[in-house]
Amino acid sequence: MQNQKLQRGSLCVVGLGPGADGLLTDQVRASLAGATDAFGYFPYVERLSGMEHLQLHASDNREELERARNALNLASQGRQVLMLSSGDPGVFAMASAVFEVLDSATPQELECWSTVDIDVQPGITAMLAAAARLGAPLGHDFCAINLSDNLKPASVIEHRIRLAAQADFAMAFYNPCSKSRPEGFERALKVLRSECEPQRLICFARNVSREDETLLVLPLESVSADMADMRTVVIVGNSQTRQVGRHVYTPRSYGKPAKQ
Amino acid sequence: MQNQKLQRGSLCVVGLGPGADGLLTDQVRASLAGATDAFGYFPYVERLSGMEHLQLHASDNREELERARNALNLASQGRQVLMLSSGDPGVFAMASAVFEVLDSATPQELECWSTVDIDVQPGITAMLAAAARLGAPLGHDFCAINLSDNLKPASVIEHRIRLAAQADFAMAFYNPCSKSRPEGFERALKVLRSECEPQRLICFARNVSREDETLLVLPLESVSADMADMRTVVIVGNSQTRQVGRHVYTPRSYGKPAKQ
Repeated sequence: MQNQKLQRGSLCVVGLGPGADGLLTDQVRASLAGATDAFGYFPYVERLSGMEHLQLHASDNREELERARNALNLASQGRQVLMLSSGDPGVFAMASAVFEVLDSATPQELECWSTVDIDVQPGITAMLAAAARLGAPLGHDFCAINLSDNLKPASVIEHRIRLAAQADFAMAFYNPCSKSRPEGFERALKVLRSECEPQRLICFARNVSREDETLLVLPLESVSADMADMRTVVIVGNSQTRQVGRHVYTPRSYGKPAKQ
Repeated sequence: MQNQKLQRGSLCVVGLGPGADGLLTDQVRASLAGATDAFGYFPYVERLSGMEHLQLHASDNREELERARNALNLASQGRQVLMLSSGDPGVFAMASAVFEVLDSATPQELECWSTVDIDVQPGITAMLAAAARLGAPLGHDFCAINLSDNLKPASVIEHRIRLAAQADFAMAFYNPCSKSRPEGFERALKVLRSECEPQRLICFARNVSREDETLLVLPLESVSADMADMRTVVIVGNSQTRQVGRHVYTPRSYGKPAKQ
């Protein structure tokens, strides 16, 4: 181990959940209380604005690798550093970015960062918070797909949606579209319309757990691309997904009735 | 609304997380504090044994529908009732079972249960707790598959694993095998061996977040079916999943290097 003279630094990649304080875990709360610094995308850092013991380091999105490098460098100086994600840090968030930086580090960086304890702490990811508010649309086999083509080709996304529909997975779409990439959800809808029946249930959960949360459930035939934005998680039911009262759920059983 | 004279009852389907108290949310903690009764599978009810204000109603697994009916009946008498799941109640757990019972209710049951407020509160599901401990193996598109053929044909499970491999999803397997059904994970391995390269990373996370947690990461060619049991979540990397130091991660980018 290097630098035994230094206090040992840490980088803790934490999930803040979708927005409501009630969806924070005790583990993450304790990490927030014990840290010295917090890095993250502007709106996530903003959620910690009340915590005066924390030095806040906000940056824009699309700067994840530089943010991870800066956090590791500060942690190597003996600071207790947080890397903030909304939801869960392991789902389309900062945990992979941190390991990408470690994996491509120079020998000098590796030596510098070798004293840093790295920990990932889970959070409530948007699709599961949305599913709970809707009922249980992900109660059977399902998949999670990031519709942003920022880091992968659109053809890969379309291929995955097509195979997921053929496997009859329920699906959760993250980042369905953005100002810079409005076409993501429209592309996904084209595939769904070619693979799924018109009555397939599509759920839109926007700003889940926040004061301005909205939930919308429609059959595929009534859905248009403008119903989703970057603050929306879209959940596509499987062929068995049903509504009961105000709730949407997917039965646990498949190919035979749920009898016990 | 019926029975306005009664105090309004509630059924709150809560996720206790994978085991560690630190992975409980504040929301679920508050629900535990405010409830009068808790229903669930024996080991989950046991986790609440210290809470003397709660009347505990433990039952065996395979009794989910009867458990849900009993909980709705008690809630309709004005009690504040919890339905316990480990992990997240919407992922292969009790939320769907509750809605299945509501969906197949008799007119008499529906009238009786019409006064019950039903709420689902998310928790940290096993695959995301496991992914955090491992690093970030689910950092790219992924799917979750329940390998139990208790409620669906084995052929459906094998078909889904095959298509998920062809889509190059990372995969999380729940209930990989049980005493009554030891063959589930062996069947899954056969499909993986036919679709994936021998070096594909397979992660075994057993009793995640508990004192006796164990993590094991091996290439597919070194995996045998006896490495998983009912307390294990198996995470199968996608073709890009890598190890860096003691961590396993899946890059956010696909088909081109992660550069920003």
